[in-house]
Amino acid sequence: MTTSTQINGLDLAQLQAVVAALQADPAKTQTVWRSTVHWDGGFQNQFQSRGHAPVRVDEPRGLVGTDTAPNPAEMLLGAMGTCLSIGYALNAAARGITIEAMDLQVEGDIDLGVFTGLKAEGNPGYSGVRITAQIKSDATPEQLQELHTHVLRTSPICSTVQNPIPVQATAVALP
Amino acid sequence: MTTSTQINGLDLAQLQAVVAALQADPAKTQTVWRSTVHWDGGFQNQFQSRGHAPVRVDEPRGLVGTDTAPNPAEMLLGAMGTCLSIGYALNAAARGITIEAMDLQVEGDIDLGVFTGLKAEGNPGYSGVRITAQIKSDATPEQLQELHTHVLRTSPICSTVQNPIPVQATAVALP
Repeated sequence: MTTSTQINGLDLAQLQAVVAALQADPAKTQTVWRSTVHWDGGFQNQFQSRGHAPVRVDEPRGLVGTDTAPNPAEMLLGAMGTCLSIGYALNAAARGITIEAMDLQVEGDIDLGVFTGLKAEGNPGYSGVRITAQIKSDATPEQLQELHTHVLRTSPICSTVQNPIPVQATAVALP
Repeated sequence: MTTSTQINGLDLAQLQAVVAALQADPAKTQTVWRSTVHWDGGFQNQFQSRGHAPVRVDEPRGLVGTDTAPNPAEMLLGAMGTCLSIGYALNAAARGITIEAMDLQVEGDIDLGVFTGLKAEGNPGYSGVRITAQIKSDATPEQLQELHTHVLRTSPICSTVQNPIPVQATAVALP
């Protein structure tokens, strides 16, 4: 007979086994992630990761896209918000906190002046991102705040946005 | 009779009209983008932007997810790569360069030690991102390099990753 303790939809024994495997071989925490992008013409693109279904990306009509899908700016916000959600589910489970429901609103500001070529100088990207996480759980206010502080500090994607990260990019001409 | 010049799937007259409208009212370059995240239990999430179909996010089974979709780390790479692709299409069109085909490979390294709680200190996020854009076009090598340099410098999402961006996040307890 096997018993399985689930919390927040996660199996505690599985979580502990993954952490134990990483402790036994710390080199395994070094991970490489990949996405490949295929251009479909205009501003339509799709990207793919491992064997998963392609994710479509486009731009709104006001930016001369065909508005068939979210744009890269929205994809980035979605990546940040889902990273936090996963962090809450994981770290709440580790603390014995049961989350009943969770929704996040993520928004940020971009001055498109540089991207559109109107401004020669300035920041082309987000100047700031604001996130509100609405969490229904059995945590006390103090527990929720401690959980939130930990999750934000350890979020891979929010950390990537908050910190300066080197990006190497090259263009190769195909014959 | 109207004539329409298309290049890279983009209508040049539409592009010029958007730029002219922004020049006439530079405050319009200030944009706000939003995504809302709904947690589905475990590491399964979906995020939504404007009226578009939700985008599913999960984690691989090796990280105790159910592997139904890309994870946030892959979504971020997809956002970076599609932002560059859109930048190439736009800025090539503005230069009269015809792109016939374009694919990008995006990869990056994350040490999951901080996220998984094995390391108290360190960078939880990407330590670096590498991008290769394969572009079939009528550009000379010099034109392609100039295009690439401009696109990378003006990319909203790659700039967001390369620069330190303030992120404000709050957690609200739902009753």
